[in-house]
Order: sequence, then structure tokens, then C-alpha cells
Amino acid sequence: MLTVSKRGVEMPASPIRKLVPYADAAKKRGIKVYHLNIGQPDVETPPAIMDAVRKVKMPILEYSHSAGNESYRKKLTEYYAKAGIQVNKDEILVTAGGSEAIMFAFFACLDAGDEVIIPEPLYANYLGFACQTSVKVVPIRSAIETGFELPPLSEFEKAITSRTKAILICNPNNPTGYLYSRDEMLAIGEICKKNNLYLFSDEAYREFCYSEEPHTSVMHLPGLEDNAILIDTISKRYSACGARIGAMVTKNKKVYDLAIKLAQTRLSPPGLEQVLGEAAVDLPDNFFDEPRAEYLRRRDLLVTRLNQMDGVYCPNPGGAFYAIAQLPIDDCNKFCQWLLEEFSYNGQSVMLAPATGFYVTPGLGINEVRLAYVINLEAIHNAMDCLEAALKVYPGRTIN
Amino acid sequence: MLTVSKRGVEMPASPIRKLVPYADAAKKRGIKVYHLNIGQPDVETPPAIMDAVRKVKMPILEYSHSAGNESYRKKLTEYYAKAGIQVNKDEILVTAGGSEAIMFAFFACLDAGDEVIIPEPLYANYLGFACQTSVKVVPIRSAIETGFELPPLSEFEKAITSRTKAILICNPNNPTGYLYSRDEMLAIGEICKKNNLYLFSDEAYREFCYSEEPHTSVMHLPGLEDNAILIDTISKRYSACGARIGAMVTKNKKVYDLAIKLAQTRLSPPGLEQVLGEAAVDLPDNFFDEPRAEYLRRRDLLVTRLNQMDGVYCPNPGGAFYAIAQLPIDDCNKFCQWLLEEFSYNGQSVMLAPATGFYVTPGLGINEVRLAYVINLEAIHNAMDCLEAALKVYPGRTIN
Ligand SMILES: Cc1ncc(COP(=O)(O)O)c(C=O)c1O
Ligand SMILES: Cc1ncc(COP(=O)(O)O)c(C=O)c1O
Repeated sequence: MLTVSKRGVEMPASPIRKLVPYADAAKKRGIKVYHLNIGQPDVETPPAIMDAVRKVKMPILEYSHSAGNESYRKKLTEYYAKAGIQVNKDEILVTAGGSEAIMFAFFACLDAGDEVIIPEPLYANYLGFACQTSVKVVPIRSAIETGFELPPLSEFEKAITSRTKAILICNPNNPTGYLYSRDEMLAIGEICKKNNLYLFSDEAYREFCYSEEPHTSVMHLPGLEDNAILIDTISKRYSACGARIGAMVTKNKKVYDLAIKLAQTRLSPPGLEQVLGEAAVDLPDNFFDEPRAEYLRRRDLLVTRLNQMDGVYCPNPGGAFYAIAQLPIDDCNKFCQWLLEEFSYNGQSVMLAPATGFYVTPGLGINEVRLAYVINLEAIHNAMDCLEAALKVYPGRTIN
Repeated sequence: MLTVSKRGVEMPASPIRKLVPYADAAKKRGIKVYHLNIGQPDVETPPAIMDAVRKVKMPILEYSHSAGNESYRKKLTEYYAKAGIQVNKDEILVTAGGSEAIMFAFFACLDAGDEVIIPEPLYANYLGFACQTSVKVVPIRSAIETGFELPPLSEFEKAITSRTKAILICNPNNPTGYLYSRDEMLAIGEICKKNNLYLFSDEAYREFCYSEEPHTSVMHLPGLEDNAILIDTISKRYSACGARIGAMVTKNKKVYDLAIKLAQTRLSPPGLEQVLGEAAVDLPDNFFDEPRAEYLRRRDLLVTRLNQMDGVYCPNPGGAFYAIAQLPIDDCNKFCQWLLEEFSYNGQSVMLAPATGFYVTPGLGINEVRLAYVINLEAIHNAMDCLEAALKVYPGRTIN
């Protein structure tokens, strides 16, 4: 008999996708569904960077350099310099989204069976990439009660084994929205330094920080040049998720050289979108002000509304465009499905991401959901009206 | 100490890349280098498909469906129907080039340590993807003496073990240019059927066949629906290598569903280039006539010139735009380097791909090189003049 691979069977399936048929069915029944479930920004892709693609002269759409066009990598050094990150073009490897950068980092730094420590809840696709590269994810719980701040360092120390090769931090965080402070980043850096671990820092949401303190990149940490692997992407930064352009950035020459072999095997990153990425670096410095202000308004509305609801608790996230809320419910998977399958309020309902999908430890997050504030203020208002009404009548409500 | 992964160290490095610094140095010395070493077509990307991207209305460059835009997949069914391949949109998974399709196929069908049989010489990046997915490549020699035709079936039967899960055929072949006949494809299909093996068929060069007999796709083989996994790409078809658009096509629902999980993990294939790919299906039916005729003229010139040289043998390839030639030399690696480092003829030289890089078995291909006829007729003429002159004076010449 033909058999598929066991590891393929073991690949985690997205917890959100399971809900899609229910959302589709709800829409068929005429219900308006507010999507707070995915991280696809509704912000327009800057016309100037789409225009750059329209205007490009490229008689042959050739393979680019496997590390990305030299002109783009040079341009990126300007972008990084503005973010206080001093790198040269040969420390940047342009990838097919942050996604590919994660794969490259895992494969180049870890062998099969090696371990990477990641605070949970975590970006669920890390688990898929870990499965693909036979890497073991060792979760450390960050708790909603403390606003998802960095777990105590002693927890990291306890989790380190002879197979531990790296710690992965997502800053600001998806799914929690937590923004790690400079002190927290320094502390993780210290642990990595002391234990000879790589520090993978996923900074997909670098531009979306809402505190006074500037964002701390892994590349800002002194003395960590060899350990630091920056995972980056233009997906959220310029609302260009479909471009599939990201980067792995590191001053560790050995890691870079191995990653380049992976890059050469797949030949090159997408060609037209590199033009788009290059043009994006020339957007005016105040470009992020407007989207950032808009996300901030949305966050404030969302978090305020959530915390006004009976039995709901949502810590105030410092970055990205996600929040995790604790709800008075028995099981977030049941609740999210029920919202789409059985509930509606004024012909409307809301699609949320069950938080269990972001935890590795079974049972955690059972009464939590993630909300992505990628819809406008009015829609957030309406979605919160739905959620408030829903919580009142949900059969699995846990408090009265 | 920080260590990189052992598997990263073991990743094969491209044999051609080693020569790049020598080519660069030669150019610095003012030597004109003819590039017969890489498969980057010099044919213009059809302006109509570049225009489709220019004209597209896409206010937000969003993540597409992980399997590719539905409209593109639907359109692709028309393309496949013209090639005699009946598939529906849910049997097509749009990938980041054929490269990603190979990865997906390896991972979905084989576990770590499982074996895939591939006739050698082979497309060298298969080895990189095999390394990334911990798959073992078991080579079977196809010989230059028989024009690289399918090795005897008994060789396949002998190579099959309990770990064998698939056979991979590239048709027409890179690096040999060999075009497998319908009978050969049927025969491989039989073996796969009998032994419950997947048949991965890499048809990157489908459009470039120079015989009367039409191209035989794995999807044409009767009774092989569950075994057949088609690896496809628009890179060479439309001279759009930089688009990074390919496809994995299969009627095997289990394999498709596993591959979709991989696709979801990396979110989506490139967005703008899917528009380009979709527009390409509407190119007029005679679109391939001109590039095909041009490649044919080049092949004829190249092969004729090669076989006129003393001690050189080059079988006439039936497809793609590659040929492998046997030269009267001691070591193709030394020779290719020498061509760039020490030789020139009228201020010109030629860059070839040492064939050892396409063989798995050590020692094979030592006196062979691969030539890609992706330069125009005059350039091929000049390049052959160089090669002819070089062979006369090369210190490692093996015959007089
Ligand atoms: C934390 C994080 N990392 C990486 C990614 C991958 O994004 P992309 O591959 O589009 O760059 C995402 C996407 O949502 C993300 O949220
Ligand atoms: C035989 C073969 N397969 C697959 C590929 C991968 O090409 P791409 O990823 O551009 O589709 C190539 C590229 O040269 C090739 O020659």
C-alpha cells in the first residue's frame, strides 16, 4: 500500500482553519461575520511601492541572487540603520517571508532532535516549522495574569538541557501583543550568552509598538553578535503579506553560510516583490505614524470594551495587533464554533481564534481567545457588541 | 561554544558556485565569458504577462489562499487540459517554484531515512532538498553511451528496499536533456504500481521537446492516479524564473492534504506573480513555437559543433535546453576552472558546469560537462570555438 509520511500526519493543522467551514456556513445563512481571527492587516499597501513594481524595467524576470538582489540588500541596510541596527548587505539573506527565515534559522542552527525554548502562547506556525525540521519546541508558560511578561529566568534555566540550542522570542509578540522591554531582552540575551544558545528574534511587528520606550531588537544587544538571529518580514510592516518577502539577518558568518546553501537550493526569493521591498525603504519616515495611530485607537477600543464585559480580562498589549482575552467560558474551541454555528446578534457574529492553538502544553488557554484588531473601529465596536451578547447566552458560560 | 547544525554542514554546496569567483576574476581581466553553465533562459518574459501585473488592481497585497488563488488554480486546469492532463483546482497546489513542490513532495510522502530512487546524473538541488528533508537519494546510473535513456528496469528492481518510497523522474531531463518516451514512462509507472511507490515527475521543461512524439506526463499514465505526483513550474515555460511560481499536482488526496499543511505553515505563494502565472495561461497557443524553434536551432548547432571536436561525444538531447558532453579531459572540475583561470581564446572563454556535481556516485562524470544552450547562436558558435581551442591545449588532455 502507498503510505504517506508519518511526520506529515503529525504536522499540526491550523486551529483557525477548522472554523472556516463554520464561518462560510454562517455567511451563507446571511450572517455578517467580523473577522478578528487572522493577522491580515486591512491597511492599504502603499501605492508608491506597488507603483515601483509597475514601473520596473525587467525584460527577463530572472532568478535573483539567492540571498536577494544586492541592490535590495544594500537598501535594507538603510532601513536597519534607521532602526538602530548596524548590518551590512552580506549579513542579510532575503527570504520568502519571515516564514522561510524561521525555517532557515531552525535548520542551520539545530539538528534533528535539538530543542528550542519558546515562551507560550506562541505563533502557531513555529510548531509547523519545528515539525518540518524535526526540532523540538520546549514551551515556557507566560501567563495572562502577569500580562504575558517574560517568564522568570529561572524557568528558562530549568528548561535548558544538553539538546537546547536556541531560545525564540517574538517581539512584539504574536499572539499576546506583549512588548518585551529592553531589560527583558537583555536578560534573555544573558541567558543565551551564558549557555551558548542562539537567540532567534522574530520582529515581524517591530513597527507596531505603542509605548514610549523604543523597540528593542536582538541586534541592539551588546556582545550577542554571534548568538543573534533576526527573523524579519515586510508582511505587516507595509501591509504586504502577499509579497512573501522577509529576511534572516545575522552577523554569525557560519550560520549565514549554511543558510545560504539552503537559499541556493531553492534558487531565489520572489523577484517582483523584491522591487516592492526596495521601494518601501524610501517611504517617508512618518509613513508608520498613521497606521500605528490607527492600530493604537483600535487597541484602546478593543481592550476597553473587553475589560468592561462581565468576567472578561484582557491585559493591555504594548505592540503588534493582537490581544489575548480570558473569557468566562468552558472551552474556547467550542465557544468559537458556537459563535459561528449557533449564535447571531442583529444578524452579525464574530470569528475569534481559540487560544489553545497557541499553547503547546495541553489544557492551557482553554478559556482564552486571540483577537486581531485588523478591522476598523466601527467594526470592532459591532464585534464587541456581538461578543458581549454572546457571552450572556453561551451555554458553556462558567460564571453567573 | 555555539555550534551550527551538522546537517547544515552536510548540505551539498553547488558545484557551479565554486567557479563563480574564477569567472568574476576572468571578467576583471577583460575576458568575455560565455555562460553555458546555468539554466537561466535568455528569452524575454512575455510582455503581456508582465503587463498583467502592472494592470492588476490590488489595494492590499494580501496573503493568498495557501494553495494559491482559486482563480489561478482554475485557470491552470485549462493549461493542463491543453497538455492532455485532466485535473481540477483542488488537485493543484501552487508553490514557490518547482523547488518548493519538490520539498513538499519529499516531506509529504517520505519519512526521515526513506529512499527515493533517481536516475543519475540528476538535477543537483534534489540532493539539497533530500538533505533538508532527511531523505536518502539512491542513484541509478543512466549512461552517456546509451544517450542517457532509462536504465534497465532490472536496475530499479535491484535498488528497491523496504525503505524505498518513490522514484523521481525528470522529463525532459536536466542535466541530460533526455526525453523519456511514452514506453519508458509506462515502464517506470509499472514499477511504481507494482512496488507501491510514488512517481515524482519533474516536468519543468515540458514545453521544450524536440521530437515528433508528444511529451508524456506522469499524469497521462493510466491507473497511476494515486502514485503520480507532478512537480511543475512556470520558470522555464515562460522564462519567468524570478516569479517563484510552481505547482505540486496530484490526485492523491492524502498527499495533497498533507502538503496543504506545509503550505499553510508558510502561509501563501507570492501574490503578484500568481497574477502573472494566471495571465500566462491566456498566451496564444502558438506562443511556444518561437522559443522552441530557437532552442532547437541552438541544440543542433551545439551538438553538431561538439561532435565535430576530436575526442568529444555528445548525445543528441530530445528536450529541455541542456546537453552533457564527454570530453578528452582528466577532470571536469579542473578543466572548468582552468578555462576561467588560465585559458582564453581571442579574449574569450567559456563557463561550463562540471558534471560530477550531477552524479551521486563518486567518480562518475569525471570527464563530462553540462552545457546549457541559453545563449544565442552566435554566442554558441564563439563558445564552441573557445572550447575547441581549449581542448587542444589543456594540460590534462587524455588523448592525442
Ligand atoms: C510572529 C510572526 N512571525 C512570522 C510570521 C510570518 O509572516 P510572513 O511569512 O508573511 O513574513 C507571522 C505572520 O503572521 C507572524 O505573526
Ligand atoms: C529539473 C528542474 N527542476 C526544478 C527546478 C526548479 O526550478 P524553480 O524552482 O525555478 O521552479 C529546476 C530549475 O532549474 C530544474 O532544472
